[in-house]
This record gives sequence, structure tokens and C-alpha cells, in this order.
Amino acid sequence: MSDCRSCWVSVAAALSLLLISTPVFSQDAKADPLPSWNDGATKKAILEFVRTTTEKGSPQYVPVEQRIATFDNDGTLWSEQPLYFQLAFAIDRVKALASKHPDWKEKQPFKAVLEDDMKTVSASGERGLVELVMVSHAGMTTDEFEAIVKDWLATAKHPRFHRPYTELVYQPMLELLTFLRVNGFKTYIVSGGGIEFMRPWVEKVYGIPPEQVVGSSIKLKYEVHDGKPVLVRLPEIDFVDDKIGKPVGIQKFIGRRPIMAFGNSDGDFEMLQWTTAGKGPRFGLIVHHTDADREWSYERKSPIGRLDKALDEAPKSGWVIVDMKQDWKFIYPFEK
Amino acid sequence: MSDCRSCWVSVAAALSLLLISTPVFSQDAKADPLPSWNDGATKKAILEFVRTTTEKGSPQYVPVEQRIATFDNDGTLWSEQPLYFQLAFAIDRVKALASKHPDWKEKQPFKAVLEDDMKTVSASGERGLVELVMVSHAGMTTDEFEAIVKDWLATAKHPRFHRPYTELVYQPMLELLTFLRVNGFKTYIVSGGGIEFMRPWVEKVYGIPPEQVVGSSIKLKYEVHDGKPVLVRLPEIDFVDDKIGKPVGIQKFIGRRPIMAFGNSDGDFEMLQWTTAGKGPRFGLIVHHTDADREWSYERKSPIGRLDKALDEAPKSGWVIVDMKQDWKFIYPFEK
Repeated sequence: MSDCRSCWVSVAAALSLLLISTPVFSQDAKADPLPSWNDGATKKAILEFVRTTTEKGSPQYVPVEQRIATFDNDGTLWSEQPLYFQLAFAIDRVKALASKHPDWKEKQPFKAVLEDDMKTVSASGERGLVELVMVSHAGMTTDEFEAIVKDWLATAKHPRFHRPYTELVYQPMLELLTFLRVNGFKTYIVSGGGIEFMRPWVEKVYGIPPEQVVGSSIKLKYEVHDGKPVLVRLPEIDFVDDKIGKPVGIQKFIGRRPIMAFGNSDGDFEMLQWTTAGKGPRFGLIVHHTDADREWSYERKSPIGRLDKALDEAPKSGWVIVDMKQDWKFIYPFEK
Repeated sequence: MSDCRSCWVSVAAALSLLLISTPVFSQDAKADPLPSWNDGATKKAILEFVRTTTEKGSPQYVPVEQRIATFDNDGTLWSEQPLYFQLAFAIDRVKALASKHPDWKEKQPFKAVLEDDMKTVSASGERGLVELVMVSHAGMTTDEFEAIVKDWLATAKHPRFHRPYTELVYQPMLELLTFLRVNGFKTYIVSGGGIEFMRPWVEKVYGIPPEQVVGSSIKLKYEVHDGKPVLVRLPEIDFVDDKIGKPVGIQKFIGRRPIMAFGNSDGDFEMLQWTTAGKGPRFGLIVHHTDADREWSYERKSPIGRLDKALDEAPKSGWVIVDMKQDWKFIYPFEK
């Protein structure tokens, strides 16, 4: 009986090895793991990086436990126009709550939201947006908030595509996430968006479990209500996972530096910088929104998803730029 | 080519199923996955819970993605006497830095540390301890701190056992961690200790990767030094992962309620409460330090690892209590 522990360890180790060493590349050389990516330099760079870091005996080989890949969400995995989807959620939530807050009819930024006056909402600046987020995201338990998010996603439709927001995810990125996971990578979201706004749906949509989501958060408080413990969401910022917050969030939540990072805006600059400044093979990629017909075209001057500093840095730091129009055969899954 | 994505998904799914559905229990009915646990009610309760939650077709079956198990560290996975090992680290660190801080000779609590006057150190209270932690844990980059922790662990010896601190881990708990992982559980540490104090060694010692560690933290700041990005550790508390902080830490970092929780003190009360109050099968366990000969014996009045409120609650909430003296054949791996 005394050698049983090692026996269990062996079983686990054998199974892990089986999972990890499956020769994905050699198994069927003709199979294309990224069918929605057009052939070209971008696709080649991704395939090459994954091959050289996972092939046994490769000088660039990276042990499986270090294969961490972090993805921004808004504009990288799903669309973010004409406004961040989470802001659309906050606006719908304010409207749903308005009957309980008659004072909002005269109080900004709520008045502007109720009148669909997006110009005034934008003009209310960061303080106004934080107010909107707080009334729509705080004051309930974590379980209640999860139900609210799920309900909204089940009913809300995107104004341009008239489809649920979760259908506006990028087909090529879904393929990339799967391809990386099959090759032993742990895929994380590292987003400026709210961590609890993402967790209820990312597992189903991206295959990324809630525990692999890093995001902005408000404070939580543990309380016992009538003998039942709950976590109450407080109207107080806990952590902003954007810009210089992204490497901090990565360290807090993951505790290892990623070897691959994917973003689309200046909010991802520091995540890309932190990732690609590490030793050994590193990969940084920027999704450049260049397709006004199938998606949107925006970059240096866009108030949402502004891509300026990071676009200048990309060639200097060797970050790969995806030209959505050129590189992607399909944008959304429903196009197929 | 268009069906390749589903082909990769199938490969991944098939491999996952293979990993998950391996019938650990039926494979070798005679093998004991917990050889350092004496037969009895405690061991039986663990085996039964894992069997009923993982066996296909069981009415208590829990899908693999929901199999989250959280473990306190100090006093649950390794010893915590005669003082928390991280405090021993802080004290050694203060001594190592003393030559650069001549004022410490006259300034409490540093003076007491330098004179090995632990009574005065304790009397300095929480404020004194926080001061010690800040000077020893902040003011360097995350990479530098990791190196400092590793150096200390490689050289420091426990005062009673004269062995490296990382040898004072509990053999029965190592077996339990492995047993749970083999059965598809994701094992997490949820500790009041410093997250960055644990991450450098827990993967090697417990098989728990850095990204599955939840703990207390100080604030980090992203900076670029001479073109090289670093994360600087600031002398400012970010999060205290103890007592009511544990369910908050679990929600922040994991985003799902565990189905199993393991602790040893009142600091784990809320984690056990939060875990076992969830719907469906739940398991709470308390390690009761009852073995003064092989380890230590302490409970209701101990300043370290005080177990009072949780000991009273255990029978009411159905939490299993491990009697270390009775239930554990071995305490430490080196006894075998």
C-alpha cells in the first residue's frame, strides 16, 4: 500500500503527458487549425511561434506550465463599436431601474441616458461613466448580478447587427483560442472590462473558464443575510485593469508573465510590453480594425479602442499586426 | 478545410474526456490513494465525497469544471509553529537589512527583532507586524522578491526540526491534493499569507501552480527602468485574504464557489461557511492540531492558528474534523 501515492502520481503524469505531447502538427499535416485566417505573414507568424515553442526538441521549446496566453476582450475577441458592450448594458440597466429613481429625470448623466442623448453622456466624462457603472453594477449580491448579466445577454440586441452581443465575437480568434489550448496553452482574458460582467458567459462563448478572467472590479463585502452567506457588490472601485493596470492584474491573478499577448488598443500597450520584454520566445499581436464594411474601421483618433502609441511601437517591438480586412476570411461566426 | 476547427475541438474534447473519465476508483480497488491516513470516519468521508461527486451516473455527480477545492496554507498544508513561517522570513530579512538601517537599533519593533525579543515583537501588535512585513516585503521588484524568497527557503532552517521550512508540509495533505487532482479537481491555496511569498515554491512542493494561489497582497506599480519594464512592490496593503476576506478572495480570483474547503483555524471560518452553504454536494474540513509529540497541540487559546468559533461550528455545519494524532499515520514526508 505504501507505494500507492506514487501510483496515483504516475497515472496523473501519464495522462498529462498524453494530453500535452499529442503531436498536433504532425498528426494531420493537411488540417488547418486556423481556417478563417487567410494565408499570409500574420497566420504564418502564429503557426511558427506555436510550432517552435511546443515541438519537443525545439531550441525555442517552452514547458507547458509556462504557456500562458493573455487576450484583451473588447475589440480583440469581440466588437466594441458603436460603444463598449458593457456600457450598452449599463445604459439598459439604468433605463430598467429608472422607475425606482424619479430623480434621474433631472439628474445627469442619468437624464441624458433616459433621453438617449449619448453626446451628453460622453461629455459627462469619466466621473459620469463611473456613476452609471456604479448604479448599474453595485448594490446587489454576486449571484444576483450574474443573473442580471445573463438575462441582458439573452435579450439585448446589437444596434447594427440585430443579434445578441455574444454573436459578435471574432471567428478567427475563436479558432486561435482553441488552437492554443490544444497545444497546451492556458488562455486568459485580461480586459479593462468588468470581471463579473465577463465571467457568466466567457466559458460558453470562448471556452475560457471564469477563473481565467482578469478584469476591472468593484469591492465585495461578505455578509450573512438570514443565515445565508452572500457577497455584496459595493459602489467602490477595487481595481482598474487597463493600461499600466494590465501587467499588475496579470501578476496579481496569474503570477507568471505570459509568453503571448493579444490586444487591439493603447489600453493593451503595457500588457504587450510586459509580455514581450520577458526572456525567451515571446509573441505580441495587435488586432487592427481596418474593415469598415464587415466590422468597423478605426484607430488613432477613435474615442473607443484608440490605437496610436501601440501602432507606432509594434514594428519596433516586433508585435504582429492583424489587418482584419486582409487577414480574416470571416469576421463573425454567423458569416460562415 | 472548413471543418477543421471542429476537428481540433474534437481532438481536445476527446483528450479531455479521456483525462476526466479515467475510472480511478474502479481501476485498482485495492490501491489506497491516501496511505498516510489511518482508516476511520475522516478518511471514509473524504473517499466517499470524491467517489460520489466524480462517478458517472452518481446522483451527486459534479461536472469537472465545478470541482474547485480550496486549501488554507498555514496549519493546513504546512506547520505554523512556533510562529508563522512568513514571519520567520520577515525577521530574518530585517536582520539581513539591519546594517543599512542603523536607526533600527533604537526603533521598535526592529530593535526587538534584532535582540530576538519576541515578546516585545508580539506586543507591538498588528501595526508592528505590518511595519516588519512592509520593510521586508516591499521596495523591490517582483523578480527581486521572488529571488529573495527562494534564497531564504534554500538556507533557513526551522528551529525545532532543523530542516528547511518546505519539508514541514503534511504528507497526508500532499496525498489528498494529488488524489483530488487525479479526480479532476482544481486545487487552490486560499491563504492569509502573502501571495508572492507562496508562489515561488508551491508548484514544486504541492503541485499547485502560481495561478492557483490566492493570498494577501501589497500594491504593485508598473514602471519602466532603463527601457526594461518592472513591477515594483509598494509598502501599501492591497488585500487581506483572511476571515471575511477569504470568500472575497475566492470570488475575485476564482469566480466560482468551491465545493470543497480545507482549513484549520477561525481564519478559515468564512471560507468554510461560504463553501458549504452552496447548493449541491459540499465538503468542509478542519485540521485539528492535537499531536504535541509529532507536531504541536493548540486550539482555542493559541495566538497562532486559533481554532475556537470554527470548532464549535463544525458539528452544526457538518464539517469534518481531522484529529492529527489519530487520523494521520505520518505527519511529515521525512518520517516515512
